[in-house]
Amino acid sequence: MNTLTVIKIGGNVIDDPAALTRFLTAFAGLPSAKVLIHGGGKVATQVADKLGIQTTMVEGRRITDQPMLDVVTMVYGGLVNKQIVAKLQALDVNAIGLTGADAGTVLAKKRPVNDIDYGMVGDIDEVNSGQIQFFLHQDLTPVFAPLTYSEAGELLNTNADTMASAIAVDMVKHNTVTLVYCFEKKGVLADPNDDNSVINELTPSIYAEHKAAGTINKGMIPKLDNAFKALTNGVSKVVICHADEVAAAVQQGAGTTLRLD
Amino acid sequence: MNTLTVIKIGGNVIDDPAALTRFLTAFAGLPSAKVLIHGGGKVATQVADKLGIQTTMVEGRRITDQPMLDVVTMVYGGLVNKQIVAKLQALDVNAIGLTGADAGTVLAKKRPVNDIDYGMVGDIDEVNSGQIQFFLHQDLTPVFAPLTYSEAGELLNTNADTMASAIAVDMVKHNTVTLVYCFEKKGVLADPNDDNSVINELTPSIYAEHKAAGTINKGMIPKLDNAFKALTNGVSKVVICHADEVAAAVQQGAGTTLRLD
Repeated sequence: MNTLTVIKIGGNVIDDPAALTRFLTAFAGLPSAKVLIHGGGKVATQVADKLGIQTTMVEGRRITDQPMLDVVTMVYGGLVNKQIVAKLQALDVNAIGLTGADAGTVLAKKRPVNDIDYGMVGDIDEVNSGQIQFFLHQDLTPVFAPLTYSEAGELLNTNADTMASAIAVDMVKHNTVTLVYCFEKKGVLADPNDDNSVINELTPSIYAEHKAAGTINKGMIPKLDNAFKALTNGVSKVVICHADEVAAAVQQGAGTTLRLD
Repeated sequence: MNTLTVIKIGGNVIDDPAALTRFLTAFAGLPSAKVLIHGGGKVATQVADKLGIQTTMVEGRRITDQPMLDVVTMVYGGLVNKQIVAKLQALDVNAIGLTGADAGTVLAKKRPVNDIDYGMVGDIDEVNSGQIQFFLHQDLTPVFAPLTYSEAGELLNTNADTMASAIAVDMVKHNTVTLVYCFEKKGVLADPNDDNSVINELTPSIYAEHKAAGTINKGMIPKLDNAFKALTNGVSKVVICHADEVAAAVQQGAGTTLRLD
């Protein structure tokens, strides 16, 4: 079985050119095959503001009307994605920038309207892991922007964490997969006020204890629930770490490693 | 030898959603393997205006400073490219959107400053036709935005006509190639004031006669010189036609076909 590392980076890395360069250099040096999924960062909001398009957030999620979809397609699918690809090429990584629409890699459905109309937001239906594996066989490194598409040919805004997890889970068909979430902390913290209180290893039972004690930051709960779901769906391990420590974290020398009991 | 059709569409198609849909439907129906290269259209200028970035043109070419490069990367590489890819997916064409940076397909050099500093503009050094052929073998249809990259990892704005011609010429290594330029006229006109005066076939000698007579629109001369250069470099034929007539033009029932004597 091949080894594959699926890594998600968020806005905090994308918004900081020096941090992005440090991350991409470490990413380029990772020994195994890899897939990168990036979020958007603040640029989308800044561009939307300048274009006179209002950003509406409901429960931390962006409402994506058509003008906002155009902005995220420009910024995530164009600017951020292609800058990362060009920088990786200069680091001798043969990167290929993709949205879910490209090569039909990630198909979604427009989210049905219940209480909230999220607009042009996609819930993932199917990952074409065979196609992604083909790219890896050609020594290409897929770099995904958080956009998917519907069978009707609509582009859809999709949460980057969810997209990383869906891709990791489907790639289990072809690989032993490690899923890495890079964010602005050194890992999952036992004490949200102490940046050095990183929990080295989380299993469902240790996680349950921390949840019961109320120590883990509430904002981490959906991320962690999602991460444990990836494990139950075949991903070998999930690592949550600071972008600057990605190389060590993949070797399990930094960050928080999640495993099943 | 495989048959390959390389088609370039310009801004007049991209700026008109109905025309774009008509074109993509015809493109989807073309029987051979194909590659699409698209220009930018007016959206880049509109977005630049709204973002307060000034557009400077010198001799019909956009001067690309860094803020303008970011705009064309967003609009060409993101918005236009991904909308085309998603629409083609809905038409059962397994499209993959690319800039030259993606999978290292089209490497360029930043244009040296002589009289004019064009800024972040790329002159093509090398097309990786082997990689493009790999995509075609996987039944993928490459859709190129007119952006390339340098070895230093810079994205570079590149003329779409030139990019189409460079790709067509390099793909001759693997295919019998037809290069099609779609524009707003029905072909090369013998009388610029008569839209129906389409010259059906142009060879270098017929072209020389028309040039001597001064009948062909001066704006067409660089395009035609470039097209004949593609023929001398191994492309089998070049067709210049209206986007609405692309299907007929490929069958040589419309537009102007260029061949060597």
